[in-house]
Amino acid sequence: MIDLTTTTALDVARRVNARQLSAVEVTKAALEQIQRLDDSLNAFITVTDAQALDAAEAVDRAIKGGKTFPLAGVPLAVKDSFHTAGVRTTAGSKALADFVPKDDANAVARLKAAGCVLVGKSSMHEFAYGFTSQNAHFGDCKNPWDSTRIPGGSSGGNAVALATGMALAALGGDTGGSIRMPAALCGVVGLKVTYGRVSRHGGIPLSWSMDTVGPMTRTVADAAALLGVLAGHDPKDPASSQLPVPEGLNPLVGNAKGVRIGIPHQHFLETMEPDVANAIEAALQVLKDAGATLIDVPFPSIDPVRGAHRAIIFSEASAAHEPLIRDQAQGAKLSDEVRSSFVAGFFITATQYLAAQQARRRIIAEYRNLWNRFDVLVTPTTPIVATPIGATTVTLNGEEHPLVRAFLDHTLPFNLTGQPGLSVPCGFSKTGLPIGLQLVGRPFDELLLLRVGAAFEAATDWHKKTPPVARRPVG
Amino acid sequence: MIDLTTTTALDVARRVNARQLSAVEVTKAALEQIQRLDDSLNAFITVTDAQALDAAEAVDRAIKGGKTFPLAGVPLAVKDSFHTAGVRTTAGSKALADFVPKDDANAVARLKAAGCVLVGKSSMHEFAYGFTSQNAHFGDCKNPWDSTRIPGGSSGGNAVALATGMALAALGGDTGGSIRMPAALCGVVGLKVTYGRVSRHGGIPLSWSMDTVGPMTRTVADAAALLGVLAGHDPKDPASSQLPVPEGLNPLVGNAKGVRIGIPHQHFLETMEPDVANAIEAALQVLKDAGATLIDVPFPSIDPVRGAHRAIIFSEASAAHEPLIRDQAQGAKLSDEVRSSFVAGFFITATQYLAAQQARRRIIAEYRNLWNRFDVLVTPTTPIVATPIGATTVTLNGEEHPLVRAFLDHTLPFNLTGQPGLSVPCGFSKTGLPIGLQLVGRPFDELLLLRVGAAFEAATDWHKKTPPVARRPVG
Repeated sequence: MIDLTTTTALDVARRVNARQLSAVEVTKAALEQIQRLDDSLNAFITVTDAQALDAAEAVDRAIKGGKTFPLAGVPLAVKDSFHTAGVRTTAGSKALADFVPKDDANAVARLKAAGCVLVGKSSMHEFAYGFTSQNAHFGDCKNPWDSTRIPGGSSGGNAVALATGMALAALGGDTGGSIRMPAALCGVVGLKVTYGRVSRHGGIPLSWSMDTVGPMTRTVADAAALLGVLAGHDPKDPASSQLPVPEGLNPLVGNAKGVRIGIPHQHFLETMEPDVANAIEAALQVLKDAGATLIDVPFPSIDPVRGAHRAIIFSEASAAHEPLIRDQAQGAKLSDEVRSSFVAGFFITATQYLAAQQARRRIIAEYRNLWNRFDVLVTPTTPIVATPIGATTVTLNGEEHPLVRAFLDHTLPFNLTGQPGLSVPCGFSKTGLPIGLQLVGRPFDELLLLRVGAAFEAATDWHKKTPPVARRPVG
Repeated sequence: MIDLTTTTALDVARRVNARQLSAVEVTKAALEQIQRLDDSLNAFITVTDAQALDAAEAVDRAIKGGKTFPLAGVPLAVKDSFHTAGVRTTAGSKALADFVPKDDANAVARLKAAGCVLVGKSSMHEFAYGFTSQNAHFGDCKNPWDSTRIPGGSSGGNAVALATGMALAALGGDTGGSIRMPAALCGVVGLKVTYGRVSRHGGIPLSWSMDTVGPMTRTVADAAALLGVLAGHDPKDPASSQLPVPEGLNPLVGNAKGVRIGIPHQHFLETMEPDVANAIEAALQVLKDAGATLIDVPFPSIDPVRGAHRAIIFSEASAAHEPLIRDQAQGAKLSDEVRSSFVAGFFITATQYLAAQQARRRIIAEYRNLWNRFDVLVTPTTPIVATPIGATTVTLNGEEHPLVRAFLDHTLPFNLTGQPGLSVPCGFSKTGLPIGLQLVGRPFDELLLLRVGAAFEAATDWHKKTPPVARRPVG
């Protein structure tokens, strides 16, 4: 049986298209890995077993009939906030425990049409909004590198599934770091796309003006191939861009030559765990050796960025779910943490919300100017590695920080500005936990991020490491 | 001396470019008309006399030097909400009575560069927001057809100046009908452009998501020529569109042949004064004779349109001016009506505002579908003619209506949807007051509106009428 912990989506697709391997065999391998590991790791809220095998058979039949698929037979995990036809979609909440959509989200439909086989709906923070109560309603999801630690979130189940070979492709959502952060903490690749690049239709919303949908994978080339399938206009998402999908995503050619890399010496590199600082320093040397130019850049204060992000997400989340929150029976099913955040949102005034949106416009203009001096910004995706389940603070440079701040401060600025960000594995802590490197580009410049990310990946082998728990028993 | 009540902007520009007439002569004629009439009509808050003559001399010099201008020597009125370099800009409020901007608004700069000569800053409702207290702080502006009646607003001074030959071109703003409504009530032409078509940079905002800047003129061809100058991208207005300015604005060719005209039998034609109903019926016949096809269309309820418009304008206006409103000394200078509206805005919650924006999205989609069945919608610009100064209600079909509703119900839907609307004169009431016809098009389809408007104008002579008070004394 194929070992999914040592292969990639594109490799599987190539072999399935060439009929060296069947989609059914691949699906069985993924389901077996889920069966073996997921009682303890909790990467999935719902596993699709029979439906997955049916879908795999359909792919095999079509290939026998002469068809090929860009992602033929690739086992796919989908965050449980995206509608899946006939498969319950809980958004990680008991309030939606019995919700079974009739249709696939646009992004899910595109991946299925490209040959992906849905193996399950993955664990997430409730409504992508809870922070401490990871997957509160469906059992704690665990980091496969150390099961006493969190996988990060909100798209945490995806990262666990990819790291352990339960899936080779995943669909996530990122409103403050929810794709990049768990990718970094579990040692996989996560791409937060430009706002408007991928349709959100059929996704359960958190923040209309910041939500994005994007791929999580084991390699940068796989992320590029998924983006090629996911990107493009959808009239059903009013924010969906009309810009054409770039050429060159599949096959992706890695290249960092002549790329100007911005090194942000305020905020983004100020407060890090020493192991993270060392990994970033080594990563910068790799990029330099690959032909990039490193440029020091000052960054403006993060305070208004944090404040605007918070006011906007609180307002928009409560507006998106107001009927559910105000329904007595449904509201009671929410966790205390999420319900109190939702209710807090009702007390924000329209003028406060609009002031945040105006601050956001100024910040976007400031960042646009900064990017005139370089092409790609480099930061640690998170300044710390995965923390113990239940922890709420972390001590850095002798100061105690709330975890929500430590984990999201480097990613949320680019949800506010709408820019794309890519997290790639760039090392491990002395305690054996993965560290992520974030590359941030100009709006709609995903291709450059992916090229630089692929060049970095080609010069390192962090993405090839597998958590011991995931290794298949011999014999 | 040239009689500005019987000419047009394009005619003056042609003669000034041909050196048959000097810009100084034209400016003097405008200033003389202002001198003679404006003590009683109050079209202007500030008249620019000396600066106007200097600007006119500069135009004449440039023309002697071989240059030509699309609007050479055209006397221009600018609503007092647009920044004018070195000329005070009050937004119709005592709170800004001493505000003198350093730079011109983008739209003002474009008109000046095209050869226009600024003759004054025109009367408006306070912050374009007051409704009953027209021009409360700077003296009631009066309708030149009956000085006991209102000119409409908020861009009321512009309409009075154009109707009486104090100016041949004007710059207005329209957030709910503020260009179209006074144009209709004073018998001139007003174009509310598509949201994003003309830069708002340097305009004092009322509603970021609905404010538009556009021309008011005496003919449709003049409006088209002004749009040609005003339209185009401005990086300083984040909502400014990148779409190219259409060809064919100057010279404009009128044509209604084959155009499908939508006749909305709900709401827009339900409640009208009999004289207005007769004028609209006659106008439809004119359009039919010009080759248009008339198509009856049902329209959805106006209730959510009104509600969403109101929630958005209240929230955004208060957000735009929060520091001024909260400043004790400045806030006290606002009229009671405007201050209480501003303060009311602080009590709208973010979720209410966002619910209104979501309703707006649904309405935009509904209207987009309606416009598949026709090209241009026809409505009366206002269902009633100008009312007495001080009136707050009007009786229609035996029912009393608040004036704000009667005057804005036909225009505000297209601020919510962002569509362009053109008001052209289409008749008079038995009491001698002007009636306006509104043509509404698809986003960025101003050219079609202007062509149909020009065809209508060519077949009628309503736009040639001059209020008796404006006629120059003989000798």
